[in-house]
Amino acid sequence: MSQTESALKVIPLGGLHEIGKNTLVFEYEDEILLYDAGLSFPTEGMHGVNIVLPDTTYLRENRDKIKGMVVTHGHEDHIGGIAFHLKQVDIPVIYGPRLALALLRGKLQEAGVEDRTELRTVAPRDFIRIGKHFLVEFIRNTHSMADSFTVAIHTPKGIIIQTGDFKFDHTPVDGEKFDIQRLAEYGEKGVLCLISDSTNSEVPGFTPSEGSVFPNLDRVFSQAKARLMVTTFASSVHRVNMILQLAEKHGRSVAILGRSMLNVIAHARTLGYIRCKDSTIIPLNSIHKLPDHKVLILMTGSQGEPMAALTRISRQEHRQVKIKDSDTVVFSANPIPGNTISVVNVIDRLMMQGAKVIYGKAHGIHVSGHGCQEDQKWMIALTKPKFFLPVHGEHRMLVKHSQTAQSMGVPAENMVIIENGDIVELTEDSIRKHGKVPSGIELIDTSRSGIVTSKVLEERQQIAGDGAVTIVSTVTEEGKLFAKPEMHLRGVVSSVDRGALQTRIQESIAIVLNERWTEFARK
Amino acid sequence: MSQTESALKVIPLGGLHEIGKNTLVFEYEDEILLYDAGLSFPTEGMHGVNIVLPDTTYLRENRDKIKGMVVTHGHEDHIGGIAFHLKQVDIPVIYGPRLALALLRGKLQEAGVEDRTELRTVAPRDFIRIGKHFLVEFIRNTHSMADSFTVAIHTPKGIIIQTGDFKFDHTPVDGEKFDIQRLAEYGEKGVLCLISDSTNSEVPGFTPSEGSVFPNLDRVFSQAKARLMVTTFASSVHRVNMILQLAEKHGRSVAILGRSMLNVIAHARTLGYIRCKDSTIIPLNSIHKLPDHKVLILMTGSQGEPMAALTRISRQEHRQVKIKDSDTVVFSANPIPGNTISVVNVIDRLMMQGAKVIYGKAHGIHVSGHGCQEDQKWMIALTKPKFFLPVHGEHRMLVKHSQTAQSMGVPAENMVIIENGDIVELTEDSIRKHGKVPSGIELIDTSRSGIVTSKVLEERQQIAGDGAVTIVSTVTEEGKLFAKPEMHLRGVVSSVDRGALQTRIQESIAIVLNERWTEFARK
Ligand SMILES: [Zn+2]
Ligand SMILES: [Zn+2]
Ligand SMILES: [Zn+2]
Ligand SMILES: [Zn+2]
Repeated sequence: MSQTESALKVIPLGGLHEIGKNTLVFEYEDEILLYDAGLSFPTEGMHGVNIVLPDTTYLRENRDKIKGMVVTHGHEDHIGGIAFHLKQVDIPVIYGPRLALALLRGKLQEAGVEDRTELRTVAPRDFIRIGKHFLVEFIRNTHSMADSFTVAIHTPKGIIIQTGDFKFDHTPVDGEKFDIQRLAEYGEKGVLCLISDSTNSEVPGFTPSEGSVFPNLDRVFSQAKARLMVTTFASSVHRVNMILQLAEKHGRSVAILGRSMLNVIAHARTLGYIRCKDSTIIPLNSIHKLPDHKVLILMTGSQGEPMAALTRISRQEHRQVKIKDSDTVVFSANPIPGNTISVVNVIDRLMMQGAKVIYGKAHGIHVSGHGCQEDQKWMIALTKPKFFLPVHGEHRMLVKHSQTAQSMGVPAENMVIIENGDIVELTEDSIRKHGKVPSGIELIDTSRSGIVTSKVLEERQQIAGDGAVTIVSTVTEEGKLFAKPEMHLRGVVSSVDRGALQTRIQESIAIVLNERWTEFARK
Repeated sequence: MSQTESALKVIPLGGLHEIGKNTLVFEYEDEILLYDAGLSFPTEGMHGVNIVLPDTTYLRENRDKIKGMVVTHGHEDHIGGIAFHLKQVDIPVIYGPRLALALLRGKLQEAGVEDRTELRTVAPRDFIRIGKHFLVEFIRNTHSMADSFTVAIHTPKGIIIQTGDFKFDHTPVDGEKFDIQRLAEYGEKGVLCLISDSTNSEVPGFTPSEGSVFPNLDRVFSQAKARLMVTTFASSVHRVNMILQLAEKHGRSVAILGRSMLNVIAHARTLGYIRCKDSTIIPLNSIHKLPDHKVLILMTGSQGEPMAALTRISRQEHRQVKIKDSDTVVFSANPIPGNTISVVNVIDRLMMQGAKVIYGKAHGIHVSGHGCQEDQKWMIALTKPKFFLPVHGEHRMLVKHSQTAQSMGVPAENMVIIENGDIVELTEDSIRKHGKVPSGIELIDTSRSGIVTSKVLEERQQIAGDGAVTIVSTVTEEGKLFAKPEMHLRGVVSSVDRGALQTRIQESIAIVLNERWTEFARK
């Protein structure tokens, strides 16, 4: 089918029907351009799994086609998978923003795959060529992470705008504005397809500017009489910067807790995305030398993650930090669905130890990094795409986003709702789903450096619910019990006691052996 | 301490710092009055647990004091624990509303403990005496379950108002209004302590009337062109009644799916709380005889419970019901926090099979059964209590509720924030926490009819994360391996294959045996 041969293929290996592990393949004839490669985190029931990655069969089978990769920003759901993929396939070159590549470099070093690729930093409006067929322009956008991009991909079939993660923030805290002129220019020139962020497609209205958080946090800080503890996403670089600035304004020194918080701040400071005096940041063990109202502890744990700093503090398991009843704890982040219970449990534990806890939407101390329905309309209005492909969201979000596009006049037949693994074929005048590539998930147990297959998961689920019984019985050649059977129970509930259980098992084994022996003798 | 001797003790065994397993003890001298006894459901990590109950050590140790029990309404978090408790202690008599006792009788029969107590039905404004010291009046209230009560407990120290679960619904769908005149009368007479429902204490404003759902569901029903599937809480009797009435209005026959839905509807119809024509309800296997626009399937699964009807349908695991793309599925319930992920997964799966799914707050097809801040203020305003005890909520909800009471002039020192097991002592002019009773939880694995101890849970958690390895090696008296060691893996991840693993284990065992033997020989 010659039309298929010459179509541009867009294949999501992750990021659809979920938020996480965004991984997109652009393929034209013998060339593949990769766009972001994230990871996601296990859901309930994925016992012993730390990391979820997309199935990479398709990449492995087409390894020779891979000409290069672009990354849009440094969030885990966009760069967290790359180190794993580099163990399996070669990616000759990866282009991306400075901050994302700084974070990525650390990950590659840790995984020992730094030499498997070349990282090249891009600046706004840079054009880079990948293979014969792809020309990519990086367009500055606004998002919760600093140094984030939307990309325009020039292909033989036309121009694709991939929004990356975005909101329209006209008063960004770092002054780096969304390059909407460039988007408008592409809209004027003609965009074949808009591939757009669907995270908040169910939410009406606009997402407020990150700057709107400032006066509210300022108020909260000024009301705190003693120690301040603040948690937010480590990767929300603008927010972290704001917290450090407010600390300086209120004369507080800042101790930083949590590996990812320390890591992001170190890179973001080196590159100038976070600005604060060296003296503002103090080691944790010197907070005791300052009066409480001069101290702020900035930490991970805004999502109630079991091992994060604030969670451990709330459980009174943190060696150096104990809650005092004069403490004010500020959650400058909303729980993402699925984390709500963990977060409110942390809040309750902190309150029970006497802390004043500031949380919830009413305080205006958090805004999303993703645009809502009106932002999504602006994106469509500026780029005027012929075809529309909603991504970065769960199924109903994609559907809602497509309805928003239809309300603006994009015909329903000019868009497709896809799943991971679907092959989308684009030509100058058509969009369609055509076939699938393998698109399951790989569950990584990093403590065992292995893949948790669905069979392993099923077994873990089963033994988790029932426990495990091991019985060892030594049998003589004559089919008699040689010694008392040994019994070992783990996680087993029984209404009879151990001794009685042992006796019953012994009896059962004796009966079985007896029957077997009789049967065997009969033959 | 003579003051303690003559104080009224209020001891919550459950229902604080949580929503669920509400279980309250009123104790005066040698008498105990029990108030409700619920269960709750396991949280993540409670592997193989179906039911969570409060620790009943205190009841067992004081079994002779128990004079009777009152129950306020038929929700699981208020009556679900009684059958379990009756296996351990005697409760001479249980007073409660008709519907709650009908549901309770079924549970007691199932557990084979029907003869351990006597169930006595009460009507609004009934006074019942329990022991020498307690006189209880049942005051009709409004809630999501029909036939629900607030109680006034006359004690030697004064009158306690226990609100039960409530909202103020001035247009209740069954016409049974909240007896606010009686509340006001108690307020005039003098209330020692108000013990009040804190579920929605973080939510500003009023909870809308259950009746406000009607026009919105009516609109949704009238827009459905083919089959309608509707899910809600089985125990939301008013909602279920409304759905059946609307089915009749729109000329649809109703098939009912799910054990709890069938059970509640059967009891509620017998007692007249649900009214519909016999012909409206049809067996599931006759829906195929009707055109799709004449069919409504009412089912469980509004919370994405793994085994509920709608969840299994969404997984295409239901034998009799498959989704068609003309189906409209209506969620007339909001996910309670912690169930959000399960619910949206069900929604996504239904949408992916082509169903139109109506969910979310924007449609006005669900309202809470619990009052918000303004309702809570009305309760305090009507009863004018001297002391205030917020219950039925997680810690921060109790704190918020106490702040609401303070904003109305109840002094902060006239209220206490308590945990399960705290002993509250009330006298004519004081409220205080004084001591504790055992207040842990009992985790029940009903499939094993046993209690899941924390040790068992810890073991289950561990084997769930790591899997289980069993190695059996037979050793001769000379300390030599007699045969190849047997290896058995369940849920184990390994980077080497089975054969290699076997070889390595064999080598390791040989080394260990060798060393041991040498050591043994040396002694
Ligand atoms: Zn993202
Ligand atoms: Zn992002
Ligand atoms: Zn209730
Ligand atoms: Zn309740």
